Amino acid sequence: MLNKLSAEFFGTFWLVLGGCGSAVIAAAFPAVGIGLLGVALAFGLTVLTMAFAVGRISGGHFNPAVSLGLAIAGRFEFKDLISYWVAQLAGAIFAAAVLYLVASGKADFAAGGFASNGYGDLSPGKYGLTPALVIEIVMTAFFLIIILGASSAAIPAGFAPIPIGLGLTLIHLVSIPVTNTSVNPARSTGVALFAETAALSQLWLFWVAPLIGAALGAIIWKALLGKD
Amino acid sequence: MLNKLSAEFFGTFWLVLGGCGSAVIAAAFPAVGIGLLGVALAFGLTVLTMAFAVGRISGGHFNPAVSLGLAIAGRFEFKDLISYWVAQLAGAIFAAAVLYLVASGKADFAAGGFASNGYGDLSPGKYGLTPALVIEIVMTAFFLIIILGASSAAIPAGFAPIPIGLGLTLIHLVSIPVTNTSVNPARSTGVALFAETAALSQLWLFWVAPLIGAALGAIIWKALLGKD
Amino acid sequence: MLNKLSAEFFGTFWLVLGGCGSAVIAAAFPAVGIGLLGVALAFGLTVLTMAFAVGRISGGHFNPAVSLGLAIAGRFEFKDLISYWVAQLAGAIFAAAVLYLVASGKADFAAGGFASNGYGDLSPGKYGLTPALVIEIVMTAFFLIIILGASSAAIPAGFAPIPIGLGLTLIHLVSIPVTNTSVNPARSTGVALFAETAALSQLWLFWVAPLIGAALGAIIWKALLGKD
Amino acid sequence: MLNKLSAEFFGTFWLVLGGCGSAVIAAAFPAVGIGLLGVALAFGLTVLTMAFAVGRISGGHFNPAVSLGLAIAGRFEFKDLISYWVAQLAGAIFAAAVLYLVASGKADFAAGGFASNGYGDLSPGKYGLTPALVIEIVMTAFFLIIILGASSAAIPAGFAPIPIGLGLTLIHLVSIPVTNTSVNPARSTGVALFAETAALSQLWLFWVAPLIGAALGAIIWKALLGKD
Repeated sequence: MLNKLSAEFFGTFWLVLGGCGSAVIAAAFPAVGIGLLGVALAFGLTVLTMAFAVGRISGGHFNPAVSLGLAIAGRFEFKDLISYWVAQLAGAIFAAAVLYLVASGKADFAAGGFASNGYGDLSPGKYGLTPALVIEIVMTAFFLIIILGASSAAIPAGFAPIPIGLGLTLIHLVSIPVTNTSVNPARSTGVALFAETAALSQLWLFWVAPLIGAALGAIIWKALLGKD
Repeated sequence: MLNKLSAEFFGTFWLVLGGCGSAVIAAAFPAVGIGLLGVALAFGLTVLTMAFAVGRISGGHFNPAVSLGLAIAGRFEFKDLISYWVAQLAGAIFAAAVLYLVASGKADFAAGGFASNGYGDLSPGKYGLTPALVIEIVMTAFFLIIILGASSAAIPAGFAPIPIGLGLTLIHLVSIPVTNTSVNPARSTGVALFAETAALSQLWLFWVAPLIGAALGAIIWKALLGKD
Repeated sequence: MLNKLSAEFFGTFWLVLGGCGSAVIAAAFPAVGIGLLGVALAFGLTVLTMAFAVGRISGGHFNPAVSLGLAIAGRFEFKDLISYWVAQLAGAIFAAAVLYLVASGKADFAAGGFASNGYGDLSPGKYGLTPALVIEIVMTAFFLIIILGASSAAIPAGFAPIPIGLGLTLIHLVSIPVTNTSVNPARSTGVALFAETAALSQLWLFWVAPLIGAALGAIIWKALLGKD
Repeated sequence: MLNKLSAEFFGTFWLVLGGCGSAVIAAAFPAVGIGLLGVALAFGLTVLTMAFAVGRISGGHFNPAVSLGLAIAGRFEFKDLISYWVAQLAGAIFAAAVLYLVASGKADFAAGGFASNGYGDLSPGKYGLTPALVIEIVMTAFFLIIILGASSAAIPAGFAPIPIGLGLTLIHLVSIPVTNTSVNPARSTGVALFAETAALSQLWLFWVAPLIGAALGAIIWKALLGKD
């Protein structure tokens, strides 16, 4: 179990450092910044790389909503849910602290939103509460459908991290303007602690919506699609 | 059959929500928008991800033209064609509705073309009817050649979603300025219903050309290339 | 043999239509154009997709320099070299004609360089003859090393199109500003026929340098790296 | 052993020519330049392509820090470390010379930083010494975790170059603004020799930090994650 929790800790650390780090450090770099496309790619590659590296150890969730969805779908044991959530949260918070240490090491640094998630005034494109709820639920549901399908025993071994990682890239390509894209309560929590904005006051949504979405995805999979 | 139609419904839903969603929400986001490159990547990743997730259930068409081409090539039964088309259309229309709900949730929203396809005045680059017909036919023909070749029994299992998905990305990298890229009548129909432009009056082309192109690709494959 | 030559014809057609097409139609589209990064990705994906689709039929060369290098390395028969070159040239020229038909279907069309290759005044970044020769030789040599290594019998089946296609993307990421990137005499010939510039007068370099580079890559592989 | 050292020489040559070459030649090309996203992709693809091509010959390190980390993790013999380092350095320096020859072949050439690494005034985003040390150590540590995990015997054969190459892309997506991204002492040394800036005076950091990071990654892997 130590190996599993270490894998979830380092995997979620990498997701936040790589994904949120690309957003904070490189997205809007003058003239040659990576933009939302680069951030979307970075988030996806954090999962692709660590799912290849440590996925066989812990399952490679790196996300409390994914752990819940997999438990509902019968692919993960409910009794391990809380310990996974703790490891994921610890990794996300530690990564946000390291990112803060690095990002603050330049003269004109301002934390600002620090890649946190939000709706209304804190939405990158000023989208309201309803679209934020809808997009986070729908995107997390499809993320679970992709995970459950791609890691099904019927798929040849080894491929799963590719569609799962690139699926997270796709989710970001669509939804960063709406909520800055969460689909992952640990990722949202880690950076919200360091934001200068009121991100913490909106954090509830980025627990509620991804968890509902993950449950919905697992239910759709079992009821309509899956034959594990 | 319920599983198969569910897979086509959710797959086409994802193609429209992810591909058209990236175009409507994120392509032209100020300063850091994902541009046509991001939209091209998003369309390809919708197919890559869902072909991995549910491809073994339904074949992973997500596109009426693909279903027709596969039937002509002898890889899909003509008797199932209409039910697949209905599921694909339902998924595309439902996705366009969800996208409309999300995209309209900001103060300065205007549907505009809503990622619909067009030629002449409705072409992103003002290309006329002839180039629109040619590019949609040729691109769909090659899409079918890629699909038929990459899912041939001679290819090691598991790889097919990669060239098929990235092939759709490539098609978009070339042809968005011409027609906004269809090669998929369901995708064109779903968003045309919500466009403020005259997209519906041009919808015929995005059924006729992809279906002709898919048939052409299947015939080229069987006559000149394939040895299934 | 008809199947093999058809595969080379359609593969090279796709390389020119997809790669050069993305450059002519989409690279500099206002505000959201795909840029050199999108063009580099498009060229690579033409090879990735068709190598998956028809690579097992013809070997998937789509490039006279690749055919020569494979022959020197003992992976392809010299007696088939001329027929492959003819099929590749025919595909490239036909693709350039189709691209011209599509691209000219808008009011303000001007062929300009039409994605042709060049040095000196015809180099995108005004690089001279020497850097053009060096970059085309070195890039083609490494393209052959990647092809020979990735398609070696020691590599698990199925992966080769991924590094080979993405290798061509990488080559374009570096060298478009120097020569507009050839490494492929057929690609250079096809579009040079339609350019309004003096591209045809510089075409010799884009036969000589890629062929020398391919021979060099094959020799390096056999002498220093390969154990087929 | 000649084959192994040749593989490391050409692999590191390709990493510097492709990665640093894309930065010097194409990153800031007017209007359609590839930006930091393109450079990040280029670096990753150098490793992806050559790891597929020659990885089975030498292990595909192309990086002195990777060789050290693999030795500490018990996957590479310490007695071969120095000869690998020499081959890697030779490849990096030769590639930087070829890049200089090509890049200087235009009228308005200025070497400037020549894609070298730096902190403080030589950091692209003017990040100080502490963030430079932290980011280089952490990024190299995760690079080793990805390499050790993805090339573990428990992973199906053939996939490893994908997460390893794309992991290097991810590392660049985050950290180019901080140090221009090294995680590879050979890459840093090769181009520092040609920079017009004081890059050589800061080169020590890009040996010390990557080597510490690689050792740290190997230790984390063995202590907390790995079960080879």
